[in-house]
Amino acid sequence: MISTDILGRVRVVLSHPSHPGNIGAAARAMKTMGLSQLVLVNPKRFPDAEASARAAGADDILASAKVCTDLDEALAGSVFAVAVTARRRDLGPPSLAAREAAPVLLSHADAGPVSLLFGNETAGLSNAEVQRCQRCAHIASAPDFSSLNLGAAVQVLCYELRLSAFAGVPPTVTPTTPFSSPVATLDETERFYAHLERVMIDTGFHDPRQPKRLLPKLRRLFGRAGLERDEVNILRGILDAVERRLPR
Amino acid sequence: MISTDILGRVRVVLSHPSHPGNIGAAARAMKTMGLSQLVLVNPKRFPDAEASARAAGADDILASAKVCTDLDEALAGSVFAVAVTARRRDLGPPSLAAREAAPVLLSHADAGPVSLLFGNETAGLSNAEVQRCQRCAHIASAPDFSSLNLGAAVQVLCYELRLSAFAGVPPTVTPTTPFSSPVATLDETERFYAHLERVMIDTGFHDPRQPKRLLPKLRRLFGRAGLERDEVNILRGILDAVERRLPR
Repeated sequence: MISTDILGRVRVVLSHPSHPGNIGAAARAMKTMGLSQLVLVNPKRFPDAEASARAAGADDILASAKVCTDLDEALAGSVFAVAVTARRRDLGPPSLAAREAAPVLLSHADAGPVSLLFGNETAGLSNAEVQRCQRCAHIASAPDFSSLNLGAAVQVLCYELRLSAFAGVPPTVTPTTPFSSPVATLDETERFYAHLERVMIDTGFHDPRQPKRLLPKLRRLFGRAGLERDEVNILRGILDAVERRLPR
Repeated sequence: MISTDILGRVRVVLSHPSHPGNIGAAARAMKTMGLSQLVLVNPKRFPDAEASARAAGADDILASAKVCTDLDEALAGSVFAVAVTARRRDLGPPSLAAREAAPVLLSHADAGPVSLLFGNETAGLSNAEVQRCQRCAHIASAPDFSSLNLGAAVQVLCYELRLSAFAGVPPTVTPTTPFSSPVATLDETERFYAHLERVMIDTGFHDPRQPKRLLPKLRRLFGRAGLERDEVNILRGILDAVERRLPR
């Protein structure tokens, strides 16, 4: 069931934006589509007159923007995150077209805040940032010139979210299994990953100096499932039991 | 039948743009979506360094932009035109949502050039300008803040045109392939569950005489993800490593 203020539960997270003008453009794009929660991870310049100028009336969104020092803080409490990225990632989460990603993101918003993550204007998102998300979204574009301006990319995604929320069409993708327990927040899930990594190291299975692609693969597996809080508690209970039995 | 270069027959006409930055942003937006024909009616400042900066690589579109002194010249030769406008016009042409307008515009492109008309940043399009067009297009937006930036509006319309031209399957969209390795067979998955159960018992986490709903919950979690063979191998590798470290 999509309620009318569902767009208010979507965080737009800009990671390391370089140009304050793009922050303002993102705020304006959000407001035109009815979104309000802007989160900035290490913006190069903010607040800034150029951001305010480009916001062109969306000053309230800039004023209430949350500035974070890392992605953990930005995603804290979020139950689902989608990374907007043009590049293909071998080990990233499943990739959806923007039009498909919008209803998927909104289908999780009943369980808690959801996040849409955008990378730096030049470097995009790192693999580590992408792997914190449960899905990737890409905007269809010309193969030889695929780089949208950051504000323009925010506009397209927010536009798809608005159409998805208000077209009267329920999300096309619903979780395949009804959740019996609340979905885990992303920070609860991160603590599970950290715990799993520790146990893999302590048992000699994982050598952090030769990580290969082990952790991204495990993130991909559990991200695909979408962990519930109850499941995180079970998995961490198993890890606790293993740790207690390990020789000191 | 829509051919692949149909987008090359769409003119983006900006009437009286005030800010050269928006002209550059429009050029970039067009190029990301595979459009190339930019027409400017009485731009306040053009060419301009700010336009080039915001074009960010779409300089070819700026260089080939046609500058006109009136709308007649801009629309000359066009067989169909759509006015992009947020305001309702009592006497204007029929109004369509952007998503509906895109295929309508392209359906006329076999007969000749078609045009998409955008107004001035502040004043929008005049009634006279709108009445030169066969349809209006509007972008869904928040009722209390409906004014998109000009470049952002061009981006949304060009995005809809691209999706429409490629029938929702633009060539850059790669099929979602959640599985990078073959899916595990059901018996491989069963052997993993048996292995997991053994380790949970041996570590004291699981008491088979009081099973509660532990195993069904874990089956539900991994079943939801749909395990790949590679993932089963990793998970069983972790279980092996744990077993080797357990006191005998």
